[in-house]
Amino acid sequence: MGLVVQKYGGSSVADAEGIKRVAKRIVDAKKNGHQVVVVVSAMGDTTDELIDLAEQVSPIPAGREFDMLLTAGERISMALLAMAIKNLGHEAQSFTGSQAGVITDSVHNKARIIDVTPGRIRTALDEGNIAIVAGFQGVSQDKKDITTLGRGGSDTTAVALAAALDAEVCEIYTDVDGVFTADPRVVKKAQKIDWISFEDMLELAASGSKVLLHRCVEYARRYNIPIHVRSSFSGLQGTWVSNEPRGDQQVEHAIISGVAHDVSEAKVTVVGVPDKPGEAAAIFRAIADAQINLDMVVQNVSAASTGLTDISFTLPKAEGRKAIDALEKARPVIGFDSLRYDDQIAKISLVGAGMKTNPGVTATFFEALSDAGVNIELISTSEIRISVVTRADDVNEAVRAVHSAFGLDSDSDEAVVYGGTGR
Amino acid sequence: MGLVVQKYGGSSVADAEGIKRVAKRIVDAKKNGHQVVVVVSAMGDTTDELIDLAEQVSPIPAGREFDMLLTAGERISMALLAMAIKNLGHEAQSFTGSQAGVITDSVHNKARIIDVTPGRIRTALDEGNIAIVAGFQGVSQDKKDITTLGRGGSDTTAVALAAALDAEVCEIYTDVDGVFTADPRVVKKAQKIDWISFEDMLELAASGSKVLLHRCVEYARRYNIPIHVRSSFSGLQGTWVSNEPRGDQQVEHAIISGVAHDVSEAKVTVVGVPDKPGEAAAIFRAIADAQINLDMVVQNVSAASTGLTDISFTLPKAEGRKAIDALEKARPVIGFDSLRYDDQIAKISLVGAGMKTNPGVTATFFEALSDAGVNIELISTSEIRISVVTRADDVNEAVRAVHSAFGLDSDSDEAVVYGGTGR
Repeated sequence: MGLVVQKYGGSSVADAEGIKRVAKRIVDAKKNGHQVVVVVSAMGDTTDELIDLAEQVSPIPAGREFDMLLTAGERISMALLAMAIKNLGHEAQSFTGSQAGVITDSVHNKARIIDVTPGRIRTALDEGNIAIVAGFQGVSQDKKDITTLGRGGSDTTAVALAAALDAEVCEIYTDVDGVFTADPRVVKKAQKIDWISFEDMLELAASGSKVLLHRCVEYARRYNIPIHVRSSFSGLQGTWVSNEPRGDQQVEHAIISGVAHDVSEAKVTVVGVPDKPGEAAAIFRAIADAQINLDMVVQNVSAASTGLTDISFTLPKAEGRKAIDALEKARPVIGFDSLRYDDQIAKISLVGAGMKTNPGVTATFFEALSDAGVNIELISTSEIRISVVTRADDVNEAVRAVHSAFGLDSDSDEAVVYGGTGR
Repeated sequence: MGLVVQKYGGSSVADAEGIKRVAKRIVDAKKNGHQVVVVVSAMGDTTDELIDLAEQVSPIPAGREFDMLLTAGERISMALLAMAIKNLGHEAQSFTGSQAGVITDSVHNKARIIDVTPGRIRTALDEGNIAIVAGFQGVSQDKKDITTLGRGGSDTTAVALAAALDAEVCEIYTDVDGVFTADPRVVKKAQKIDWISFEDMLELAASGSKVLLHRCVEYARRYNIPIHVRSSFSGLQGTWVSNEPRGDQQVEHAIISGVAHDVSEAKVTVVGVPDKPGEAAAIFRAIADAQINLDMVVQNVSAASTGLTDISFTLPKAEGRKAIDALEKARPVIGFDSLRYDDQIAKISLVGAGMKTNPGVTATFFEALSDAGVNIELISTSEIRISVVTRADDVNEAVRAVHSAFGLDSDSDEAVVYGGTGR
């Protein structure tokens, strides 16, 4: 039995009862002979409440002090968790990101981990303790200031510690049973995936699946740390994410891992762009200079009669205004006709390493959408993913049609999904 | 203009409005040309709420993890205060006790400061920042664990930083206008004291005055740091506590500084103790071994006929049970007749360095009590203090009588006291 890193999200430790339940689970792992390191998020809505307080005192709260504020949340949950474990008769010590040796750059509110030096954690483990570490936070290398890692930061803390401590596995506990072949709220017959490769999981995360964030999976792949995503409300096996399945892990959906969808994006179309070298570059330089991250990019075939073409791209809705402004500003240089902005779109993605060696996947995908009467507006593909943009209204039907067409539907009528509801 | 340390208590930063009000006051000090270091407590009831959470997860929350938990409170208030100051256009940085160099011993929940190494604070000041420091917390010298300083810890943090930074003054902001000649809730004609010596303030603090704690005044006296206790709700001058009054400080009450009272104590009488050497020692050894702090100790004259005497002492009510148990356990060794426990007592103390050189103070004190019909049960004196124990029911009348007898009553009918009420 080796070392296990467990990560519990805010919903798992939302109140005293939740903390006591999690403490029991941690103690069970310890009793099974593991060395246990636990990464914990802030309780329930704590972070939102702190952000609300910050907005009350200042309209511009970002930066160093905002990080100092937010890190109070994990400090509370980790100390309470350590107390609850002691109350069960086991030794536990809690550590801030700084004490745990999570070293970051100095970019406040979205710092990147650049090193992990878990000397104190190792000592605590060697002395027989369970180590509780604050997720989401670190200390900057140059200034020794408290930093936070941004969205999904606690998952990344867990994987980074697992890598630095050479853990057997990084268990990510959440309020769902694992990663599903589609969003179970949309597809009742979605199935839990027993095992998925890092590559497929990265594509799913990039395509709208919310269970694991891209950044955390990327880190795990780099250091080859198996992730086990599972529910903190049940004892069930969840989804394993790793390089290769173990002998006992079911790999039923070898060709296709799952169907993801995303309704958080908008589409911008630059209409009437002169079809000559340098035009696209000028457009995307303007977008890049405005610090906007693009997702899909598509250029239509030029109409021979006019010598003009259209260029479309998708981006987070929240950055739509900024993109339009940047393009309008650059219009005299680029020389396009007009801009169209559309935030009533959805992106549907089919992910699976198997599609590389299985001709016909693309055809089946498009046939399924066509049979469901769903119109396709944009197409983009990678080696192991096909994504299309449709009307937002069509998204649920499209996802169900594709899920069914690739034989992903379970035999039961309804997916057993949310351990938290007690079902 | 030199360096000023300001300390704000929880009631001054109870909500976003309070934080913004305090931020303005801090910025005013900075605008006046001071370098400003601010020590801040947790917001309003935060600490109580955290203690409540701890009790929900574990009945034995004391120790390392409890300190980790509680220190989240100051982390929130200090970060918000720094944001509010930035919002007023000034630079501010917040620092945890550890970052501020507050080094303590390893006694969790009531650590003592053993060194202050404020290098980061000095740097922040030199760069033009206002430095905000978490009160009540430090880091242990040997284990580098987070510690808390116990009751009144934030005041002590402020005085310790003022000493380490060689500050001009340590301003303690609170919700009253300063130190009064008596508790204004009891004595309507109590007056604010403009200046008081460290010695008299120490006696008042030991005698039940709650504005400043003994520990904080002791620290200030050792390093000769003037304290200015004042209201965070008004701009009025408060009470200066120092070695010598400055030229502009009024010292009207040279003989007597004030009248303090305390209803938090109980009296234990050990009845029928053999009047021979070693008996008192045996009693107080039993009490000391139970880690109980005594206040007054009085031994009556032995009755010649029996060779037995009575020994009485006072102690915090909260420790009464423990004391009785310890004495009962030691009874076979000590050999007393019986124990009497009385928690319906009050202690009334008259404090003033002037009494050393003014004969008649004691007589006036007892006459005033006698005229008011107040019976005296115990008497204890120091060079600059006289304390008596009376029935708890008599305390208010006794305090008013003594206050009046020493000419401490103000001319106005009612003391203007609580800045917080807007009067």
